[in-house]
Amino acid sequence: MRYIKVGLIGYKFMGKAHTQAYKNTNFYFEPQDPFQLKVICGRNEKSVKSAAHTYGWESYETDWRSVVERNDIDLIDIGTPSNTHKDIAIAAAKAGKHVLTEKPMALSVRDAKEMLKAVTDAGVQHMVSFNYRRIPAIALAKRLITEGRLGDVYHIRAHYLQDWLANPQSPFAWRLDKTIAGSGAHGDLNAHIVDLTRYLIGEFDEVVGMSETFVKERPAENGEGKRNVTVDDTTLFLARFDNGAVGNFEATRYATGRKNHEYIEINGSMGSIVFNFERMNELQFFSKEDEHYLQGYRNILVTEPEVHEYMNAWWPPGHLIGYEHAFTHQASDLARAITQQQPVYPNFEDGLRCQQVLEAVDNSILSRTWEKVEKSND
Amino acid sequence: MRYIKVGLIGYKFMGKAHTQAYKNTNFYFEPQDPFQLKVICGRNEKSVKSAAHTYGWESYETDWRSVVERNDIDLIDIGTPSNTHKDIAIAAAKAGKHVLTEKPMALSVRDAKEMLKAVTDAGVQHMVSFNYRRIPAIALAKRLITEGRLGDVYHIRAHYLQDWLANPQSPFAWRLDKTIAGSGAHGDLNAHIVDLTRYLIGEFDEVVGMSETFVKERPAENGEGKRNVTVDDTTLFLARFDNGAVGNFEATRYATGRKNHEYIEINGSMGSIVFNFERMNELQFFSKEDEHYLQGYRNILVTEPEVHEYMNAWWPPGHLIGYEHAFTHQASDLARAITQQQPVYPNFEDGLRCQQVLEAVDNSILSRTWEKVEKSND
Amino acid sequence: MRYIKVGLIGYKFMGKAHTQAYKNTNFYFEPQDPFQLKVICGRNEKSVKSAAHTYGWESYETDWRSVVERNDIDLIDIGTPSNTHKDIAIAAAKAGKHVLTEKPMALSVRDAKEMLKAVTDAGVQHMVSFNYRRIPAIALAKRLITEGRLGDVYHIRAHYLQDWLANPQSPFAWRLDKTIAGSGAHGDLNAHIVDLTRYLIGEFDEVVGMSETFVKERPAENGEGKRNVTVDDTTLFLARFDNGAVGNFEATRYATGRKNHEYIEINGSMGSIVFNFERMNELQFFSKEDEHYLQGYRNILVTEPEVHEYMNAWWPPGHLIGYEHAFTHQASDLARAITQQQPVYPNFEDGLRCQQVLEAVDNSILSRTWEKVEKSND
Amino acid sequence: MRYIKVGLIGYKFMGKAHTQAYKNTNFYFEPQDPFQLKVICGRNEKSVKSAAHTYGWESYETDWRSVVERNDIDLIDIGTPSNTHKDIAIAAAKAGKHVLTEKPMALSVRDAKEMLKAVTDAGVQHMVSFNYRRIPAIALAKRLITEGRLGDVYHIRAHYLQDWLANPQSPFAWRLDKTIAGSGAHGDLNAHIVDLTRYLIGEFDEVVGMSETFVKERPAENGEGKRNVTVDDTTLFLARFDNGAVGNFEATRYATGRKNHEYIEINGSMGSIVFNFERMNELQFFSKEDEHYLQGYRNILVTEPEVHEYMNAWWPPGHLIGYEHAFTHQASDLARAITQQQPVYPNFEDGLRCQQVLEAVDNSILSRTWEKVEKSND
Repeated sequence: MRYIKVGLIGYKFMGKAHTQAYKNTNFYFEPQDPFQLKVICGRNEKSVKSAAHTYGWESYETDWRSVVERNDIDLIDIGTPSNTHKDIAIAAAKAGKHVLTEKPMALSVRDAKEMLKAVTDAGVQHMVSFNYRRIPAIALAKRLITEGRLGDVYHIRAHYLQDWLANPQSPFAWRLDKTIAGSGAHGDLNAHIVDLTRYLIGEFDEVVGMSETFVKERPAENGEGKRNVTVDDTTLFLARFDNGAVGNFEATRYATGRKNHEYIEINGSMGSIVFNFERMNELQFFSKEDEHYLQGYRNILVTEPEVHEYMNAWWPPGHLIGYEHAFTHQASDLARAITQQQPVYPNFEDGLRCQQVLEAVDNSILSRTWEKVEKSND
Repeated sequence: MRYIKVGLIGYKFMGKAHTQAYKNTNFYFEPQDPFQLKVICGRNEKSVKSAAHTYGWESYETDWRSVVERNDIDLIDIGTPSNTHKDIAIAAAKAGKHVLTEKPMALSVRDAKEMLKAVTDAGVQHMVSFNYRRIPAIALAKRLITEGRLGDVYHIRAHYLQDWLANPQSPFAWRLDKTIAGSGAHGDLNAHIVDLTRYLIGEFDEVVGMSETFVKERPAENGEGKRNVTVDDTTLFLARFDNGAVGNFEATRYATGRKNHEYIEINGSMGSIVFNFERMNELQFFSKEDEHYLQGYRNILVTEPEVHEYMNAWWPPGHLIGYEHAFTHQASDLARAITQQQPVYPNFEDGLRCQQVLEAVDNSILSRTWEKVEKSND
Repeated sequence: MRYIKVGLIGYKFMGKAHTQAYKNTNFYFEPQDPFQLKVICGRNEKSVKSAAHTYGWESYETDWRSVVERNDIDLIDIGTPSNTHKDIAIAAAKAGKHVLTEKPMALSVRDAKEMLKAVTDAGVQHMVSFNYRRIPAIALAKRLITEGRLGDVYHIRAHYLQDWLANPQSPFAWRLDKTIAGSGAHGDLNAHIVDLTRYLIGEFDEVVGMSETFVKERPAENGEGKRNVTVDDTTLFLARFDNGAVGNFEATRYATGRKNHEYIEINGSMGSIVFNFERMNELQFFSKEDEHYLQGYRNILVTEPEVHEYMNAWWPPGHLIGYEHAFTHQASDLARAITQQQPVYPNFEDGLRCQQVLEAVDNSILSRTWEKVEKSND
Repeated sequence: MRYIKVGLIGYKFMGKAHTQAYKNTNFYFEPQDPFQLKVICGRNEKSVKSAAHTYGWESYETDWRSVVERNDIDLIDIGTPSNTHKDIAIAAAKAGKHVLTEKPMALSVRDAKEMLKAVTDAGVQHMVSFNYRRIPAIALAKRLITEGRLGDVYHIRAHYLQDWLANPQSPFAWRLDKTIAGSGAHGDLNAHIVDLTRYLIGEFDEVVGMSETFVKERPAENGEGKRNVTVDDTTLFLARFDNGAVGNFEATRYATGRKNHEYIEINGSMGSIVFNFERMNELQFFSKEDEHYLQGYRNILVTEPEVHEYMNAWWPPGHLIGYEHAFTHQASDLARAITQQQPVYPNFEDGLRCQQVLEAVDNSILSRTWEKVEKSND
């Protein structure tokens, strides 16, 4: 046994989620090579020092370059805002570190391609934190599709609905500033459902989309005056897929009453599935292989340790898991990949493909017509 | 083709429900011998005359004895309050008429036995209007159980919950007067779930129960003073069955938010079903014959004309039916039984058995211990 | 009291649904001027004669022109395929008859304009049978929006999903022939959700869409060879509205497991609603006027006779109604409008507006770009 | 800051659940006095040593007496089978340690009284791990009831349904041996719903119950021959409460398809609530304070950091938590109570009360009549 020594850049929402993932991988999954929490990094020394203590990191740094250069680190984990991913990832790869980055991978297709080239050239492991692939219900959906239980896929309907901006008086936040966030609902939420769609049914062919900013200026964070919202509040698009299916996508932060409603429905010639993150322990499945008079959407409680992926590490049947568990599953799979020197997905190529879909939608919004989705790596 | 000539006693809630059943049987089911709406009967001449016109009855009477004596009637349908069922049914049988009566069949086991004897001696058709047996989802539940898809039955949980008395200020009504209604929630609501239980899983062995009248006096209907409530607001009981299963029953008019929540869950060694009248077009079914990783309660929309009983008379898949349709199904089955001179169920023996269960519960409430359920016909 | 004398053209699915509506309006709603079922019309004499008998029409005809010309008819009801609506409606209007037509009103915007002109010139009542407006849950949705309970509307998501074509081996049918049906899922299903959208949130501004025919030829009805499918299997589109809202629409006959899943979700700044036809007695409502810690989608069982529109004609709370009841509500409202000589909606102008939206989507499919929705009447 | 130094007896299912609770309290709740994981104890040295390493305990012991005697321990946590609770708890109290014990607290009312006396005499903190009180949805239910939003409580319906014994071929396990487990479904599952009932609506007055062992012998664990099942498979009972409400309780391990279906419904004169553990992040609430036409069960997603208890330590709205989180909430509350030297609930008196209800049911099963529930502490 050796340890996988981790340097984590970022210590807020994602820093917390990733830290627990490393600790709980060790606790529940007992990997061959456990994670070692070497160093956490943030620009504010007081805050990052406190986080290091509470979260249990051995040390802290205030400059990510120092972390990347350290010799005692195997894996750089990037949990900072989107506009910083590129520089950190490329530097980490050049330093021979494995790289895990939060989504969206980059601010542009061009940046994503550079990042992919860097990790490929360096021969390191690379992964994008599309953590929802590791929800057991999604793993089950993937299995059903792989087994052919849906037959030919006709339709996908994927909507990621939140409501935290529905109130026009909510104040400005960094996620509403295009120079930092890169994008609004599109990059934040559509990124997830685009990745899941690629994972479940394959590649996009062409798209047409629209976006809207319903509330164009909001009270400044400091309470003085207004600030312009420079990202999309909602982005919707239609799509055709290489396999002939058609799709309907929507991301919004204005769907009053929908808190984290990541809804995916796939209809095929033999069956259908429905997933909703707000009931993330359940998967609905309809099968035409059932006798006609017995057909119906069955609601599978995806909590059976014996048969549902990841669940044997947790509790007895019917004992739910929560949001952060998918990060733990992701970390556990990454640990195994590093130990076994096997590829792990979604990797930077997946991250690039996702970016290419998002960018085609952006182009379509400008051109007001359909746009093909590019699929080259360079 | 001949006609089945009907005399209907009662013209209010049940009179309306039964009238539409005869008309819609003719319209949707096209029976070999259609119903003919000969005469409707009520004590208030003005009201019954108006009902005869609106509902489309050929004539009206104000004394049920006159209806029973008419030569042009084949079937007497009793839709009046419980305390009148016995006399009408016995007179009708003696006059050689077929008899359909609303539930509960009688005010006592003794009365029910007399009624059963009368129809048996007369050799006429006899039926009790436990209309819920004819909901397509219940018919499907029966089919699943008959096919053995539940295996050995362990549990039944049956609750009939309404809330129209939850407000202590709601005024008195005839259903709260024991001399007219015979019983409260027990005879009105438990009667339905006891009948469905017998239909689905078999005979009761012993019971222990309790009842409560939460609000013991209510404003009089005429607004002057108070009147004592002399029936139960709720009756609950536990049961053992001849086949070894155990059951849990509850009827109430105080379950705030439950409007007509007739809920039945049956668990067996191989599968389970769940029905709720408030979603009467659906049946939930769980099967251990499904592969382990795919098991879940499936929600069958029981609206497929090709395979779900009664539905080929109505609309395409997914087009719901409502409350009154079960009365139409009942009338359609009764018409066929009369034409073919075959028995039809639930008959007066079923009505008596139901009464015997209800009475055993009443006895248990007095004795504060378990009581055996009598099952003899005399 | 006088009678509203009806001539019904068409005696199949819609003929049956409309016939019951007239009879049940008389039975349950007791209108000032009841309907009189004078004549039903169909080309096959044997079939229409039988239908006249079973359904209770006084007479039958085999040529709709004869019906239109009869002096004893007040209302012409058109329940025939879409390609016949125009000629019948215009002739009826010229003969001074009120006109009710099934949807979609016409095969083209041009035809719809001619029809609107004809009824306007004649000064007769005109209505399009978008029956879903009369579902009590939809009436309640309309009320909530009118009362301002949703605030500013941001989003509508409307999907009408069926699955009867999901099996590639299902045979050809007239609904798949463009020369008769005019359109596939678009005209059949999107027509309904476009009308409901206009009813609930207002007029469309611009649209972009796509359509697909997944299975391009199917076994002929007579079992000999194949026939080409000439209509769309699915049509999806995005929309902007005059009030700034954005929308996402989809109709398909390939959504395995969805039987009649007409789903509508509307999100506003203060609240949201969700409706699904497969649970047509329910409306979900989320309100930000509730205290924060108590907010949640409430599931309103829209069956309260005292407070929910149309329900006082039916049964006690919690007793469901079904598909055909909305036709009865529509007929009841039409009867009142005729008696009171007041306008009734949706009228031919509404039918035209719907057609204009559908046609803009069709244009967009050809042009592959956004298309404005025309709103003129001539 | 000082540390709360913990000695944990037991390292299996509950050992794991409690260990994560201490670690996650430190990580997410940042208590004034964090927990320190001093020593874990089990009889099998190899296993407990391994557990100590994986879980992160400083040391291990193989005899619980050694742990109780150590000077560096503040809190003894008992996660062993029921028949060991009494001796450990009393010894711990005598040694001046705070005591947390798993449920059911004891094998008998007599034992529970001794335990209560021991902790009271010693003046230490005492708590029973009825962890479900700390589910945020249950905390919200408690708040609603305390605020009077349900009015007078009429009904409680509480069912704890599992299905892991539904298959008659499942082998014997220690939980089926009365000498170790003390009881079957009754002590394991009814204990939870009895505690929640007391927490939410108050004290039991009298009960009548029944139990059944459906499968009386099962294959031995070692595969050789059969072993007799000496505990109940299911126990059901009816109850009256001091406040006049009536209740209906059921626990079973034979409800096929129900995995951890802890269902609680409470109906009052002004409102109702429904909770189901299989959707533990949700609470349904019906209020008659809503306007009549808007009343419906609202489904509250209890994940709002701003307003729902415990949730500000976790993730944004709509990001679910799972089973183990309630243990963390419990540990966090216990830490605060120890620091502040304030009482914490449910304590050993609550554990005794629960035991008294369970024992009254057991007595009723023997006597076949109603039994009063004793409520004295000695």
